[in-house]
Amino acid sequence: MVQKFGGTSVGDPERLKAVARRLVAARESGLQVVGVLSAMGKVTDDLIALSHEVSPLPEPRELDMILSVGERISCALAAMAINDLGHRAISLTGSQAGIVTDTSHGKAKIVDIRAHRIHEALEADQIVLVAGFQGVSTDFEVTTLGRGGSDLTAVALAAALDADVCEIFTDVEGVFTADPRIVPEARKLAVVSYEEMLELSASGGKVLMLRSVEFARNHGVRIHVRSSFNDAEGTLVTSQEELMEQPIISGIAHDVSEAEITILGVPDRPGIAAAVFRKLADESVNVDMIVQNVSAEGHTDISFTVPKSELARIDPVIEEVAAEVGARGVQQDSEIAKISLVGAGMKSHPGVAADMFDALAEAGINIGIISTSSIRISCVVPAREVERAVRVVHDKFRLSESVVLAEEG
Amino acid sequence: MVQKFGGTSVGDPERLKAVARRLVAARESGLQVVGVLSAMGKVTDDLIALSHEVSPLPEPRELDMILSVGERISCALAAMAINDLGHRAISLTGSQAGIVTDTSHGKAKIVDIRAHRIHEALEADQIVLVAGFQGVSTDFEVTTLGRGGSDLTAVALAAALDADVCEIFTDVEGVFTADPRIVPEARKLAVVSYEEMLELSASGGKVLMLRSVEFARNHGVRIHVRSSFNDAEGTLVTSQEELMEQPIISGIAHDVSEAEITILGVPDRPGIAAAVFRKLADESVNVDMIVQNVSAEGHTDISFTVPKSELARIDPVIEEVAAEVGARGVQQDSEIAKISLVGAGMKSHPGVAADMFDALAEAGINIGIISTSSIRISCVVPAREVERAVRVVHDKFRLSESVVLAEEG
Repeated sequence: MVQKFGGTSVGDPERLKAVARRLVAARESGLQVVGVLSAMGKVTDDLIALSHEVSPLPEPRELDMILSVGERISCALAAMAINDLGHRAISLTGSQAGIVTDTSHGKAKIVDIRAHRIHEALEADQIVLVAGFQGVSTDFEVTTLGRGGSDLTAVALAAALDADVCEIFTDVEGVFTADPRIVPEARKLAVVSYEEMLELSASGGKVLMLRSVEFARNHGVRIHVRSSFNDAEGTLVTSQEELMEQPIISGIAHDVSEAEITILGVPDRPGIAAAVFRKLADESVNVDMIVQNVSAEGHTDISFTVPKSELARIDPVIEEVAAEVGARGVQQDSEIAKISLVGAGMKSHPGVAADMFDALAEAGINIGIISTSSIRISCVVPAREVERAVRVVHDKFRLSESVVLAEEG
Repeated sequence: MVQKFGGTSVGDPERLKAVARRLVAARESGLQVVGVLSAMGKVTDDLIALSHEVSPLPEPRELDMILSVGERISCALAAMAINDLGHRAISLTGSQAGIVTDTSHGKAKIVDIRAHRIHEALEADQIVLVAGFQGVSTDFEVTTLGRGGSDLTAVALAAALDADVCEIFTDVEGVFTADPRIVPEARKLAVVSYEEMLELSASGGKVLMLRSVEFARNHGVRIHVRSSFNDAEGTLVTSQEELMEQPIISGIAHDVSEAEITILGVPDRPGIAAAVFRKLADESVNVDMIVQNVSAEGHTDISFTVPKSELARIDPVIEEVAAEVGARGVQQDSEIAKISLVGAGMKSHPGVAADMFDALAEAGINIGIISTSSIRISCVVPAREVERAVRVVHDKFRLSESVVLAEEG
């Protein structure tokens, strides 16, 4: 089995020893065990800060040489602790573990896993610790995988090693119906489908990064998200087919990291929307929700959301594109939040959207942009209302109570 | 050329940038440049401490995985800084640089240098930064070279790359006739032979580690020891043949790290000394000076010095061996120091030893064990007298004045 431990789970020597005990316990239960570790606490942040002290815009190849060390330290320390527990362990860098990536430093994609060294170590009865978040490129350079990279390492190894399950130990107990800090009565989900998890992650859910879930779905890797602080069962992320029940609603995610932009009075001609979003794509702007109103008098408004962190950079681009298409003007609103209701069962329940809008209306919360997928409804609400919005929707669907199942069909 | 920078030379971002400027200046003078860097300041010490927090006796393989990261960070940061200066640079781990070692973790020996990747980078007009102190074993494991390892990396690379000179930048200005903290008027040597440098390093001189000097001598690598804080010429360490002058005395080294042990009343039979030192060798005790007195009434005393740090460990071994050979008892003295006078010209000057003993006698300093090589005389003196001993011997031979040359022959 593959067990992955995040930064807070390996935050200090005592917690590292606890990780060692957990890996040993898994080994003693008769399983072959591969551990994937993140860097300790703030190690990677400190290394980034140090790099920026030396260079305002660090060379990506060299930054990867530096950022890859934190996970190696964690793994070697855990291997020492496991040896002290009377078991044999070996730590491997991403390169030694055979994690082969493309050459995009800082956001490399895994292209192959050549796990012969892991297999050899497992055959030799060793617990294998693999440094997360990194690999070796096809050019033999050290690469890092970007945000959520250690989860991706774990899921990819679980796929390559044909592991029964990839356990992701984290500082929360699993996936909840809503953020428990906002909704104290939020319920932990026993199981959630890849598709629902994808929607939750894409909608601001912090537990798993989108790309790990995508990789898990594409390779059929079952993920068990659980707490590194206790032994409680967490949340199993698996395929729709494996779910015993299909709840109408699985959970609510929210996201306060985006801003809303509206281009006003755009001439309603074919190709205008394409022109706008091609330009934004060329500037690598990560556009999320897009809504175009119906036309009135030959003009329309186009609204979309973008990460707030990119606003300063993309502002001139938007002004330029608005002028090009002959728009009347541009409006920006950073004080927004997105709340998303996710559930595989909502496909066959047309009333869900109406119920959600009702709940918000009853609470006097104004809805801006709306967008939907077959298993998700997202609404933009004022940022100051987001916590209340999450609570009223959570209440409306009685998500803290036992699961409401969708009917067959 | 190869330039090596130690821990204080890369101690913080500003000093790292200074190192980058020095490497760039060398490149702009038209040379191909390889930089070998140590870890920043206390990084390696901190990693050792962290390892011991996790494990009382860390697995050597895993410790090497951890200890090797400090130099990599320094090199990647320096490469970033060089790129910012408009030059191209690439950092390489010991492994990437082709430093192949045996499998002795923590004290690996270099067995081969496969420098094709360095050559490629140099051909591509890059400044190459190589992480010091480390290599990859014939088993493909990360190894470290032990104390003074970064100097050794630099000297070995200079040999493999056929560099004109290996510049070792350090926090002192070169090799002096005595420790300038003890003898303020000590004189910097412009040049010193490998043989003299070996004796100085073996006798407590801190500037260069013995093994780097040995490697340099065996491979004919000229070392230029100089300060990283200014542009002054330092000391050239080279072959006897290259020296323009052959001083009688080059310098004085002292060492307070040893203790003296005497095994009293040992029966004077063939094989007794062999039995004693075989046993100590079996326990990996690093014995330095050995003196056996002339026999009296069929018994003799055997004295030797050992590192103080090993006293606790070897004490029972010595008691055991003393009992085995039927000795009368064992005496220990930790309050000793060794002062060594080194000079290639003393071979043909029998009066040197007498002058040294005179100087100490005139100062009322008692001499214990004496041992000599053809170019060195070492005396054990009381630890509390060591600074005075260095000063009176330095004065006696007027080492702060211009060089006293040996006569031809």
